[in-house]
Amino acid sequence: MKFNNKNISLGLNVTLGNNVKIGDNVTIYDNVTIGDNTIICNNCIIGEPLGDYYFDESYQNPRTFIGENSLIRSHTIIYANNEIGDHFSTGHRVTIRENCVIGSNCRVGTLSDLQGNLKIGEYSWLHSNVHVGQGTEIGNFVFVYPYVIFTNDPHPPSSYIVGSKIGDYTQIAVSSVILPGVEIGSNCLIGASTLVSKKIGNNKLVVGNPGKIIGDVESIISKETGLSHYPWPYNFKRGMPWEDIGYDKWLKKQDYDK
Amino acid sequence: MKFNNKNISLGLNVTLGNNVKIGDNVTIYDNVTIGDNTIICNNCIIGEPLGDYYFDESYQNPRTFIGENSLIRSHTIIYANNEIGDHFSTGHRVTIRENCVIGSNCRVGTLSDLQGNLKIGEYSWLHSNVHVGQGTEIGNFVFVYPYVIFTNDPHPPSSYIVGSKIGDYTQIAVSSVILPGVEIGSNCLIGASTLVSKKIGNNKLVVGNPGKIIGDVESIISKETGLSHYPWPYNFKRGMPWEDIGYDKWLKKQDYDK
Amino acid sequence: MKFNNKNISLGLNVTLGNNVKIGDNVTIYDNVTIGDNTIICNNCIIGEPLGDYYFDESYQNPRTFIGENSLIRSHTIIYANNEIGDHFSTGHRVTIRENCVIGSNCRVGTLSDLQGNLKIGEYSWLHSNVHVGQGTEIGNFVFVYPYVIFTNDPHPPSSYIVGSKIGDYTQIAVSSVILPGVEIGSNCLIGASTLVSKKIGNNKLVVGNPGKIIGDVESIISKETGLSHYPWPYNFKRGMPWEDIGYDKWLKKQDYDK
Repeated sequence: MKFNNKNISLGLNVTLGNNVKIGDNVTIYDNVTIGDNTIICNNCIIGEPLGDYYFDESYQNPRTFIGENSLIRSHTIIYANNEIGDHFSTGHRVTIRENCVIGSNCRVGTLSDLQGNLKIGEYSWLHSNVHVGQGTEIGNFVFVYPYVIFTNDPHPPSSYIVGSKIGDYTQIAVSSVILPGVEIGSNCLIGASTLVSKKIGNNKLVVGNPGKIIGDVESIISKETGLSHYPWPYNFKRGMPWEDIGYDKWLKKQDYDK
Repeated sequence: MKFNNKNISLGLNVTLGNNVKIGDNVTIYDNVTIGDNTIICNNCIIGEPLGDYYFDESYQNPRTFIGENSLIRSHTIIYANNEIGDHFSTGHRVTIRENCVIGSNCRVGTLSDLQGNLKIGEYSWLHSNVHVGQGTEIGNFVFVYPYVIFTNDPHPPSSYIVGSKIGDYTQIAVSSVILPGVEIGSNCLIGASTLVSKKIGNNKLVVGNPGKIIGDVESIISKETGLSHYPWPYNFKRGMPWEDIGYDKWLKKQDYDK
Repeated sequence: MKFNNKNISLGLNVTLGNNVKIGDNVTIYDNVTIGDNTIICNNCIIGEPLGDYYFDESYQNPRTFIGENSLIRSHTIIYANNEIGDHFSTGHRVTIRENCVIGSNCRVGTLSDLQGNLKIGEYSWLHSNVHVGQGTEIGNFVFVYPYVIFTNDPHPPSSYIVGSKIGDYTQIAVSSVILPGVEIGSNCLIGASTLVSKKIGNNKLVVGNPGKIIGDVESIISKETGLSHYPWPYNFKRGMPWEDIGYDKWLKKQDYDK
């Protein structure tokens, strides 16, 4: 069946790269640029206009960029004024509000809700149903698991918004909540259902409600191998840039390239 | 691009006010009334029929009302037999089951799931992904943050359903759970990831799993201003009816109008 | 309005039973079989192809079965290579990834996200927004309430996936998290917002973060009747196979039929 170009709406000034494929019932609004080989599946809305669109006759849709070799799964809504890197992929029914900057090789899972005005580095994977409040900054190689919430209002309701900041390689397990303005270092593991209310240094294991630091991640032994699992890049490579050469060699290459 | 009237299905006895706009791929079932200036965005379903529709040849869709100046964002499903006030707005992919009564100036965020048979007052804002069980009663100026759940079955599974009741001005932070039949007073703040299992009076600050009252909200000092933030209507006005005159004057005017 | 056969896409080798009804804007991909009297509501995608579809020209969609007398509510996505029993029903916007085996008379609520490679027995009901990780095995008559998460990776990220296993009749209340590989016995009640981290025997009541066994379910007294509510099949029959004859008689009949 593949791509039938059935019931597709394209706005003005839509730029599609080579070999872009668009599923049925897709709407792409004005001023969207999509990179080569990217696939937009059925029922997506790309370049969704901002609120003024409905009330301001002179509204101009801001530009939206989605990189090359990306896969946007069905029923996803990506607002205008987003800048998304190459090799991006989404699950189904993802919502990405305006003014996000998302690096290359990121993934955003089914039902995740990015509230806009936020930054995500490279190779960071948000699984299903992650809620990212405005002002959040997520580093590189950060994995966030289902139903995690990044909050931003210390005294709701207020107009004082302060996002959290998450360091490289940190893992945040399911159903955890990151309170407004909290900084979490690199290489941490936040356990399931943890409420993180204070600044956390590097390499920490944090669990509980309220969250407490109970040790360093190096102390966590894999049930599978009987060896220390963290730092995880030594033990997980699928989809990572060190997939072919191993983490150590890749790290050295990175230093060398600098 | 705006409104192209493309692939729209309208049932019988659909009454659209002046200047109503309807996006692409929208289905509106029988006996729906939509007020002036309301906007229904792409891919919405309005007046979704109740279960009997599929099995009873003589099924008649009950009436559905959506007020004036409302904005129903894309992929939202609103069942039949709902009564929704003016200046209503939804995020994307909202689901509102039958028999809800929702006052004016309410907002329901992306992915929220209202299970039907419930009441919401005026100016109450449900953010993304709020789950409201049947029988819940939410007052006026209540703000509910992402992934909050209002439950209703004390001994699951049973047929004894008892909703919770939330007083005016109360704020319920992310990922909290309100147990069946719990009453929460007015002006409370329920902290993030709190499990509320008992009746809570007015002005209380409640945190933890299980939730404990740890003080009055007046004791909470704003990190931004260094002053007490609650009662919040003195410090937050955006979208509120006291936006132009301040909360004190508005309160006096309310008394006067009575 | 009912079924207009408007904007429907059918792939090759789609087999529809007698009296199957298909809503507007539905896409059914290749090699899908749907049983008699089943209803597919608006905007659903059935037989959603696996990832190779987009990159492999010789991709063949695996077969997908949905049983008789099922009701698939609008905006639901069911991947290819699923085997789903009779009398199945979904809420809206459900996502079911590939390689699930789901028995007869199951229900999966609005926004639930089944990640594939999992098993669910008969008469099990997942309410709204349940997240089921790969490798999970859910027994018969298991009810799972909103925002429950079944996890599967003990040391994220890893390639060592170990699902949890849930015994017959067990009830898992809202917002609970089941950690990877955890086995929960039959007839348990897991309270709201519980983090289940260890093996749980039969008939246990578990609450808290971390979850603790605080007694047997038989000790729970119904607020409505003043009597013990569990084992619940003696006190709840709607939709259950003992609805007409009572649980005791049905149990005896089961033994007899063996």
